[in-house]
Amino acid sequence: MGLKVPAKARHFSVAERELLYEVMRERRDMRHFLPESTIDPVVLQRILSAAHTAPSVGLMQPWRFIQIKNTQRREAVAVLVDEERMATAEVLSAREPEFLKLKVEGIRECAALIAVVQAPDDGTLFGRRTLPEEMALCSTACAIQNMWLASRVENLGLGWVSLFDPVALAELLACPKGAKPIALLCIGPVSEFYAKPMLEQVGWRQPKPLQDCLFEDAWSEPSA
Amino acid sequence: MGLKVPAKARHFSVAERELLYEVMRERRDMRHFLPESTIDPVVLQRILSAAHTAPSVGLMQPWRFIQIKNTQRREAVAVLVDEERMATAEVLSAREPEFLKLKVEGIRECAALIAVVQAPDDGTLFGRRTLPEEMALCSTACAIQNMWLASRVENLGLGWVSLFDPVALAELLACPKGAKPIALLCIGPVSEFYAKPMLEQVGWRQPKPLQDCLFEDAWSEPSA
Repeated sequence: MGLKVPAKARHFSVAERELLYEVMRERRDMRHFLPESTIDPVVLQRILSAAHTAPSVGLMQPWRFIQIKNTQRREAVAVLVDEERMATAEVLSAREPEFLKLKVEGIRECAALIAVVQAPDDGTLFGRRTLPEEMALCSTACAIQNMWLASRVENLGLGWVSLFDPVALAELLACPKGAKPIALLCIGPVSEFYAKPMLEQVGWRQPKPLQDCLFEDAWSEPSA
Repeated sequence: MGLKVPAKARHFSVAERELLYEVMRERRDMRHFLPESTIDPVVLQRILSAAHTAPSVGLMQPWRFIQIKNTQRREAVAVLVDEERMATAEVLSAREPEFLKLKVEGIRECAALIAVVQAPDDGTLFGRRTLPEEMALCSTACAIQNMWLASRVENLGLGWVSLFDPVALAELLACPKGAKPIALLCIGPVSEFYAKPMLEQVGWRQPKPLQDCLFEDAWSEPSA
């Protein structure tokens, strides 16, 4: 079972490389959108096609995208997110007032709202005997990262909202048994992109340097 | 807590947009590497920096990268992967002979081998009250997708190997309690990139069209 089709490799230049890195650096998790804006369906289709070029374990392609077009349905989703926001505020205890001042989602204002649902397990064994759920989930996350970069290069914002009860959302979206919503993606025009990740910019949390995440040959972080 | 720093949005052109989409289309999950090749540490650092620009839930940055430089350690990793390959072959039953003909990893030949480990939970609550493990894992997968695209634009191959026992690999890499290896990334020069995803190219499995993954307002796939 050899590789019969000889592939002509596309060689990327230094300028092309730097452009990709620039897109990655400019990408932001957006929560502020231009209200009453729209998104061209052709553009949205390109962003979804980008998702679909993602790798997946055993080629299982476990991602499903439900675009919420109905106004009442979007409002019902927004109510679920509001409820989870309050539940999160409560467990944050000391930081509750600070959390409640943050804008954490743009469900009602964004031009397009897409729920990403992990499909019921199709039984793929290739590459997922030991970590079946994790590998399927990682495949879908790779697809979403493609959408994030695609949105940025389309000059649109994308925000991944994970503030929801997955069981309630699955019910609202009539998902079959075994399907699991993992993201509400808000996509659309923004008035500006945050200069830094929003949580860093507003002083919620500071990122760690890359060097703290790199080890050689074995885990070697000093125990905290 | 307003957004004090006005961000000047970088506007991307049509040509820049198309380049990103091209990189995504050209990216492959590689298992064939040029043996005895090397990777410039500066290049590897750029790829790891790309990982670190990924989004993460609550800015938790749960990814850790262990570069396996020691030859004996790399061989020990390769042995673990060999064992899991045989265990997978067994459960594939009818497709075992076909599976065993496939090249499923390039652990021994690739220029650089990096284990990606999910850090022990740091207690972040923001955005992960209802899906704590899933959201941390998705963040790390987004970082790996950045590395995949970065490697491609550096004209290098990257393959995500998930054929390993995570407990045995964690032990081999001296990971602390709660840390979980999720990927062995093979990175390095290749003689060519597959024209299509390798599993499609060799006839293992055919991908589904994007339209099969898109729904409106609710899940609506005809029951199989």
